[in-house]
Amino acid sequence: MFRAAATMFSVTPTASLCRGVLFSIRHYCKRTPTKLRVSQAFSGTELGANVKVQGWVRSIRSQKSNLFLHLNDGSSLQSLQVVASPELNDPSLTFGSAVEVTGVLKKSPHRNQPVELEADQIHVVGECNPVDFPFKTKERHSLEYIRQFPHLRCRTNAFSSLLRVRSEATTAIHSYFKENGFVQIHTPVITSNDCEGAGELFQVEPSSAEVEEGENFFSVPAYLTVSGQLHLEVMSGAFSRVYTFGPTFRAENSQSRRHLAEFHMVEAEVSFTESLEDLTKVMEDMFRSATEHVLAHCAEDVDLFHKHVTPGHRNAVDFMLKERFPVITYSEAIDILNRSSQKFAFPTHWGCDLQTEHEKYLVKHCGNIPVFVTDYPYDLKPFYARDNKDHPRHSAAAVDLLVPGVGELCGGSLREERLDLLRARLEEVGLEDTYSWYLDLRRFGSVPHGGFGLGFERYLQCILGVDSIKDVIPFPRFSHSCPL
Amino acid sequence: MFRAAATMFSVTPTASLCRGVLFSIRHYCKRTPTKLRVSQAFSGTELGANVKVQGWVRSIRSQKSNLFLHLNDGSSLQSLQVVASPELNDPSLTFGSAVEVTGVLKKSPHRNQPVELEADQIHVVGECNPVDFPFKTKERHSLEYIRQFPHLRCRTNAFSSLLRVRSEATTAIHSYFKENGFVQIHTPVITSNDCEGAGELFQVEPSSAEVEEGENFFSVPAYLTVSGQLHLEVMSGAFSRVYTFGPTFRAENSQSRRHLAEFHMVEAEVSFTESLEDLTKVMEDMFRSATEHVLAHCAEDVDLFHKHVTPGHRNAVDFMLKERFPVITYSEAIDILNRSSQKFAFPTHWGCDLQTEHEKYLVKHCGNIPVFVTDYPYDLKPFYARDNKDHPRHSAAAVDLLVPGVGELCGGSLREERLDLLRARLEEVGLEDTYSWYLDLRRFGSVPHGGFGLGFERYLQCILGVDSIKDVIPFPRFSHSCPL
Repeated sequence: MFRAAATMFSVTPTASLCRGVLFSIRHYCKRTPTKLRVSQAFSGTELGANVKVQGWVRSIRSQKSNLFLHLNDGSSLQSLQVVASPELNDPSLTFGSAVEVTGVLKKSPHRNQPVELEADQIHVVGECNPVDFPFKTKERHSLEYIRQFPHLRCRTNAFSSLLRVRSEATTAIHSYFKENGFVQIHTPVITSNDCEGAGELFQVEPSSAEVEEGENFFSVPAYLTVSGQLHLEVMSGAFSRVYTFGPTFRAENSQSRRHLAEFHMVEAEVSFTESLEDLTKVMEDMFRSATEHVLAHCAEDVDLFHKHVTPGHRNAVDFMLKERFPVITYSEAIDILNRSSQKFAFPTHWGCDLQTEHEKYLVKHCGNIPVFVTDYPYDLKPFYARDNKDHPRHSAAAVDLLVPGVGELCGGSLREERLDLLRARLEEVGLEDTYSWYLDLRRFGSVPHGGFGLGFERYLQCILGVDSIKDVIPFPRFSHSCPL
Repeated sequence: MFRAAATMFSVTPTASLCRGVLFSIRHYCKRTPTKLRVSQAFSGTELGANVKVQGWVRSIRSQKSNLFLHLNDGSSLQSLQVVASPELNDPSLTFGSAVEVTGVLKKSPHRNQPVELEADQIHVVGECNPVDFPFKTKERHSLEYIRQFPHLRCRTNAFSSLLRVRSEATTAIHSYFKENGFVQIHTPVITSNDCEGAGELFQVEPSSAEVEEGENFFSVPAYLTVSGQLHLEVMSGAFSRVYTFGPTFRAENSQSRRHLAEFHMVEAEVSFTESLEDLTKVMEDMFRSATEHVLAHCAEDVDLFHKHVTPGHRNAVDFMLKERFPVITYSEAIDILNRSSQKFAFPTHWGCDLQTEHEKYLVKHCGNIPVFVTDYPYDLKPFYARDNKDHPRHSAAAVDLLVPGVGELCGGSLREERLDLLRARLEEVGLEDTYSWYLDLRRFGSVPHGGFGLGFERYLQCILGVDSIKDVIPFPRFSHSCPL
């Protein structure tokens, strides 16, 4: 009636039949070369074996006695060199075409590659017309150029390296949190509250006439989340340490190199905090641990950026990791800015918000390393930030992490855990009903806690030295742009 | 000007000063108990140490000679028993209150707990009025009851176990893909295409008047993704093996126990496929690997469900993992259904879609184990499904994985990689312009490939035996419901 999914042939236990089966297994093995990915071929364990490698042609060189191909399958930046008789050449064997090559894996006589594939068969699986294909062999296309082809740019070296780094950095961040006892929470994308009370929101309704005019699908207006913070705070009342890593949204009409309508945030929330140091420690340790992991596990891919996109950036990254990140207060930051001889577009005074120009100056002033700025003016911060109860310069226990090249990478705060203070502030802004559930968190077993969010794309910009945020995300979305 | 974030005191290298500093370090260490999480306390390595444990009170028992507390901090299902003098009791020490206990960690005289904390100090950090708090000590609240309190239900044993399992299953799935050479891609939430051509879509626009009447923020109508498949297919043309794990959306007006407006999908795409077996292998291996990981790493949490929510479900899960999953074709499935004596609400014939009642019957027929159904009628499947070119029963190379209790868990297919066939089908439905970028993927280095999606919440329902999908996600969203 049904067959097991993975069983290719069954063996019955009679001797003569067994011999027959064994013969055909051997025969089958001899005829069927081992399928290898390019990264596996480079490991060198299959030297001398009869293998099949599948991928896309990255270069072709036809000489009198030999045909050379470079084959890439995305498993690594490096392509595998294929050496074949010129007779195996074919007009459909072009840059970008998909091929399947069988042959023997040999030690390469060339110093810069460990192995090469001596082909006895080359099969073109999918052709690629070199005239129509927007990328050309041996040309180094700019990030701006390849950005025009969102469905094809992953086929370039630069963007495939970016995506491997992005994948590895994601792994590293998950590992950091797991090793440190955090529970991962999938905070919702659709929400009925607006965490920041600021940020432009996207609203969500069914596209068809599922809902009566004037009614909402969810009975209430629903938005795309601008932060998972409040949902994480719910969870921090049970788990002590939680984090989320997912998409967040801003409907800002901006096409800047630092903003997207959809981006990824890493957010964490820690209970039983004593001071901002409980947060800065997690922020810094996560940054270090992820960066060290990526530098170690994606060396080639990172090098591509550090050599060809922003030459010399590796030194900048190593320098960032050398010492513990300094901490200055907002008041100290304002003093630094006020004493500066640089002319800022936005003049500074105690109480003003820090602009990107100020953040960059502070980073430079501290020696081009990441720097924490703490204790921002109370009036600049949202209702949930913890009141430092100081005066006359009234501040909140909030902290930003500023990094070279990017400015603000993380923002966080201790949260107001004191029911009376939180209720008073919510009443002031007329939100005590909207946030009655949030007040409940303080009504029942409230604990001092705090958290932060890190912009994942900005993090990648920072460690790779990529100027535009559009070049560190698979499919960038911003105003007037949502192809595919 | 600024201080290092983690430096608490500096040590200068003069002997006399060093002695002074060492003294104060010792003094400091003696006075400051080691902070421990409950799971760390259970590890037993800190026996005899002076420790501080912070968490929420799960039970209180006051006897003449002793006060007993159970303290939970979310690091494990088990609570730590605290033994204290009755003098440390306090009216604010109630079920649900947050406390900080210092004392000495001792071997417990009781068999069912390895350690207990002999308290010398109990500090109530956050009170919890037992009258207002919706959960009561020693009561076992139903999943339906706790669902009414989305901001508090994580404080119950059942839901905190669920969330730890969910977090661990997420880790396990990422690990499976990483170990098998898949690159993780963050496919976008906001998209301008509708993958299925079916499913009700949510549309997205800024909530404020950012955009002129009749204009779109993204210049085109934009929707919440119903699947990352097409974006993964872009990537499969460069990486061979890719996956995504993120939120997906359906604007279905349903309140069923199997559907949500926002849910999580695991989707994978594999290049250079030879047959559906290349997909069923990944689907089955991922299911096994994740399930075995969760059973091994969350034994206590899983047990809670297998003992108290769906007694006996552990046997069902073990049974599912015993043998390779059987594979039947859609035609065989229809034969089975046609021959069945069961009366179905929807009668069956070759060409009909399989309803949940049919799927459940097939699972039962195959012995209450997961079963693959392959080669569905061509006309039932979307444009991208690969044409099997058979007749008269014209089928496509599509596959579903049906599982006990849930029905369809995964759906996948080989994709039509042949440009001429794909173009013809898109022209038939008038979509060749909309999907010209998708045709490009076949124009340039096309390869046979395929992929599938797994509903992550349904997976959790299946392995834990949870009846309603609303009880396996932190914040369920469905029609008329989006609190918080």
